[in-house]
Amino acid sequence: MTFMQTLRDRWQQAGTLVCVGLDPEPAKFPARFAADADAVFAFNRDIVDATAQYACAFKPQIAHFAALGAEDALARLIAYVHANHPGIPVILDSKRGDIGSTAQHYASEAFDRYAADAVTANPYLGRDSVQPFLDRADRGVVVLCRTSNPGAGDLQDLLVDGRPLYQHVAEKVAREWNGHGNCSLVVGATWPAQLREVRAIVGEVPFLVPGVGAQGGDVEAVVSNAKTADGTGLMVSSSRAILYASSGEDYADAAAAAAKSLRDQINRYR
Amino acid sequence: MTFMQTLRDRWQQAGTLVCVGLDPEPAKFPARFAADADAVFAFNRDIVDATAQYACAFKPQIAHFAALGAEDALARLIAYVHANHPGIPVILDSKRGDIGSTAQHYASEAFDRYAADAVTANPYLGRDSVQPFLDRADRGVVVLCRTSNPGAGDLQDLLVDGRPLYQHVAEKVAREWNGHGNCSLVVGATWPAQLREVRAIVGEVPFLVPGVGAQGGDVEAVVSNAKTADGTGLMVSSSRAILYASSGEDYADAAAAAAKSLRDQINRYR
Repeated sequence: MTFMQTLRDRWQQAGTLVCVGLDPEPAKFPARFAADADAVFAFNRDIVDATAQYACAFKPQIAHFAALGAEDALARLIAYVHANHPGIPVILDSKRGDIGSTAQHYASEAFDRYAADAVTANPYLGRDSVQPFLDRADRGVVVLCRTSNPGAGDLQDLLVDGRPLYQHVAEKVAREWNGHGNCSLVVGATWPAQLREVRAIVGEVPFLVPGVGAQGGDVEAVVSNAKTADGTGLMVSSSRAILYASSGEDYADAAAAAAKSLRDQINRYR
Repeated sequence: MTFMQTLRDRWQQAGTLVCVGLDPEPAKFPARFAADADAVFAFNRDIVDATAQYACAFKPQIAHFAALGAEDALARLIAYVHANHPGIPVILDSKRGDIGSTAQHYASEAFDRYAADAVTANPYLGRDSVQPFLDRADRGVVVLCRTSNPGAGDLQDLLVDGRPLYQHVAEKVAREWNGHGNCSLVVGATWPAQLREVRAIVGEVPFLVPGVGAQGGDVEAVVSNAKTADGTGLMVSSSRAILYASSGEDYADAAAAAAKSLRDQINRYR
């Protein structure tokens, strides 16, 4: 089963477009984890179990693990999702990009070492830098298009032939890089107009949409501008607003409630 | 001592512009490492010792370590360079880029966990994605501008106001992002005309120049087009052509000879 088919099945069968981002920051963990030598794994495992029924995907962000030297916890976490929540794909959010011979090693990192179902990738180095990811037809490649951060426009909005750069990226991905049908695009929730424009360019290509929750994107605007004809096509990602919904003993229940609330908000506008 | 001052001192005192890239691929190691459980560290250590006198910097490429789960070897390797070859800076080649709150964790990965003196960064997400690196004034930030790979032009050569995107990146870095004077640029050796154009835009900002050696860039064209007025300003990077100069027992001598030869070629045109 490919990433794309797994994702589509999950959208339909679980009725949710929520992608739960896993961005561990031990300083924000509940007190019970203070003495836990395996806190990074244990906290994320609890969040995964609490939110799985509301999740169309899990998205661990690798910098949060790497800064802690917690590669082993990341590998065990992804294996835990596969073993305990089959049918929910894992997107490794690493935004890698390098020349082709090096990109092979990044593909190996994501897909072989960590067994991720999909990976995020940066398009600045061009097609050959993404090709080793694209070649893994059973895995997903989520290419940065229009990101959710304040500086996104510095390069992405520069006009090329009268249209912003991110639209050219969208076009390249949809028309040239998506031969295996395994591409998605990152388009931030903070820019609803851009979501609509990119949707018009790329048809049914799924979007990973960061920026709701802590970054302030509006759910109705996201869904109405970016959904596909069948009311799916989106992985609406929320990390901090779910993970750290409570710093008390009710952290898992609070995370579940936050994920459920986001699912319900999204479904109101599908 | 900042990265930039360390680099300038090294250029002057050692008389070399060679950056030795450390891209471990165990399948290419000499036979003696086949039974060595610590081969990734040991091979790189031998290369470092053999080539240090010809090196202005060392540049470990992190994907090659990550695909092998060899983070510990990478950390020990960087510590080894600092302890045994002080005065030679280490550039962690990771080409990271993410929203500001995540980029903080990448800065922590590079500068705190690995104690690298500089890091490579991808500009596609804009200034706030690079800011946590820029804020570390004692460390170097090497921003991708015009890369050496075949697909580099897919985005980097698109025309914005009549000039290719990579020239806008060069301008932003030199005029807006370089407040601490800690920025450098990646400009590939495979495109001599671009080297000249970027040099004209950015003045004395150093270049990391990959693409000589295995990728075929011409040393004379690189140096004559990209050097600064004092005959420095360049880290000419070679990885595979040095590391794997011989797969026999003479691997260290062969690596030293390849590094020396590159140093001498470069110095002929400074």
